[in-house]
Amino acid sequence: VQPTTPQPVKSHLSFQERSQLANCNKMAQKLFRLMSEKKSNLAVAADLTTKAEVLKLADAIGSEIVVLKTHVDIISDYDEDFVKQLKALSEKHKFLIFEDRKFADIGNTVKYQYQSGVYKISEWSDMVTVHAVAGPGIIDSFKDSVLQKECGLLMLAQMSSKGSLCVGEYTQQVVEMAKQNQDCVMGFICQERLSNMPEHFVLMTPGVQLNNTADTLGQQYNTPDYIVQEKSTDVIIVGRGIYQSQDPKSEAHKYRTIAWDSYEKRLSK
Amino acid sequence: VQPTTPQPVKSHLSFQERSQLANCNKMAQKLFRLMSEKKSNLAVAADLTTKAEVLKLADAIGSEIVVLKTHVDIISDYDEDFVKQLKALSEKHKFLIFEDRKFADIGNTVKYQYQSGVYKISEWSDMVTVHAVAGPGIIDSFKDSVLQKECGLLMLAQMSSKGSLCVGEYTQQVVEMAKQNQDCVMGFICQERLSNMPEHFVLMTPGVQLNNTADTLGQQYNTPDYIVQEKSTDVIIVGRGIYQSQDPKSEAHKYRTIAWDSYEKRLSK
Repeated sequence: VQPTTPQPVKSHLSFQERSQLANCNKMAQKLFRLMSEKKSNLAVAADLTTKAEVLKLADAIGSEIVVLKTHVDIISDYDEDFVKQLKALSEKHKFLIFEDRKFADIGNTVKYQYQSGVYKISEWSDMVTVHAVAGPGIIDSFKDSVLQKECGLLMLAQMSSKGSLCVGEYTQQVVEMAKQNQDCVMGFICQERLSNMPEHFVLMTPGVQLNNTADTLGQQYNTPDYIVQEKSTDVIIVGRGIYQSQDPKSEAHKYRTIAWDSYEKRLSK
Repeated sequence: VQPTTPQPVKSHLSFQERSQLANCNKMAQKLFRLMSEKKSNLAVAADLTTKAEVLKLADAIGSEIVVLKTHVDIISDYDEDFVKQLKALSEKHKFLIFEDRKFADIGNTVKYQYQSGVYKISEWSDMVTVHAVAGPGIIDSFKDSVLQKECGLLMLAQMSSKGSLCVGEYTQQVVEMAKQNQDCVMGFICQERLSNMPEHFVLMTPGVQLNNTADTLGQQYNTPDYIVQEKSTDVIIVGRGIYQSQDPKSEAHKYRTIAWDSYEKRLSK
């Protein structure tokens, strides 16, 4: 017998209400509250390759966003000063820092990749992404330090890239793994809300642009309104649509307004 | 109709013969030749957290191995001098450098993670690991620079950790993706040879120890003889069994001898 695939469903609860459901996970709760207070469900992917560019972007758009998503391993002049400055900006503008590391190794290795090395990600990131492909040991490896540092894990349940294997039964196993570790897993990276995803998890969706098209390397885009209203995920992650624009600040404001309106429309239906 | 799962099969061709089949991939060919010449099918995972420890290990065991596997992102004092010294050791002892990065993002991001940032992996690694989870765009993103740098991609077809989702249909899709990109994909990280894996691919297996047990974070171990003779993969990757021993040099020699004997027994059957 084939397992029944859960259907997409809409969430009609407010972020405020969901923050109360998210007692099990401090970072999910913190993000739900921040979204309610700031009236923003916008995350920006700062996929830039120098300290100065990332910091300039973060300062310009900080007041519009709830989360800044980084790939510190593409920054050529990364150093501890970068982290210090980024932290200061996150406090100034009240956003959370999300290192999109996509951990995908066995537990013993991931433990070191998270805590040690040049980046010491555990010391400054509020949330990090984890692939389920290596099995549940990868979560066990984080558990102690995640709980201690109050960092949230985001598990990749679906990806925005063409031909991804993160689908069907794989997605279901990710959701199960997250449910069994809800103290450290704060939510999912996904393309839609599925009926078996409890509302205490935050759903974040990359591959969002107002001008929905595709790049030449398999990335596929959807619009903010489609993702938040139709697909019922919570946070849109916008990269090139904002950081490649002439005026990132006003572009971020535009995305923020559309994404928040879409969320309010979803609630009222 | 369910697809038929390919069965495990043995390879009875020598590495010398397979180097001739591997015309399609320069790094696979190079590794097959090196194994024949050096009479070694041992790779060591240097999962140590300082430059000095990794370099000391590489110098001690370099003559026994064909591949040194690194995780540069767990080395706390990593710098360009480390790469220079490691390169010098790889030439002195004739081994290849395998950065086990487990790339697992969309193509546009992976391109930067491979070429840029602090590590500039493309400048010094002979081979790197890639997860298929994000879809074939991840391979497209490497293609140009991989072919230019003569680097080989190793795709994760199976993992040694408990509860891995890298199984069944997922594994089959990885094999198909590799076949369609055999100019840059040199082989697989796997636990067994499957009948649909052509012999020009190199098969490498982690999670190998003489004392087969498990760790507390989901890693499961098999013996060298079981992996090479019964499961018919080519290169054993040994980590803690060697670098945590009192005498890594003589322990590496022991593993090398057993793994090579197992390979010769497989050929003679």
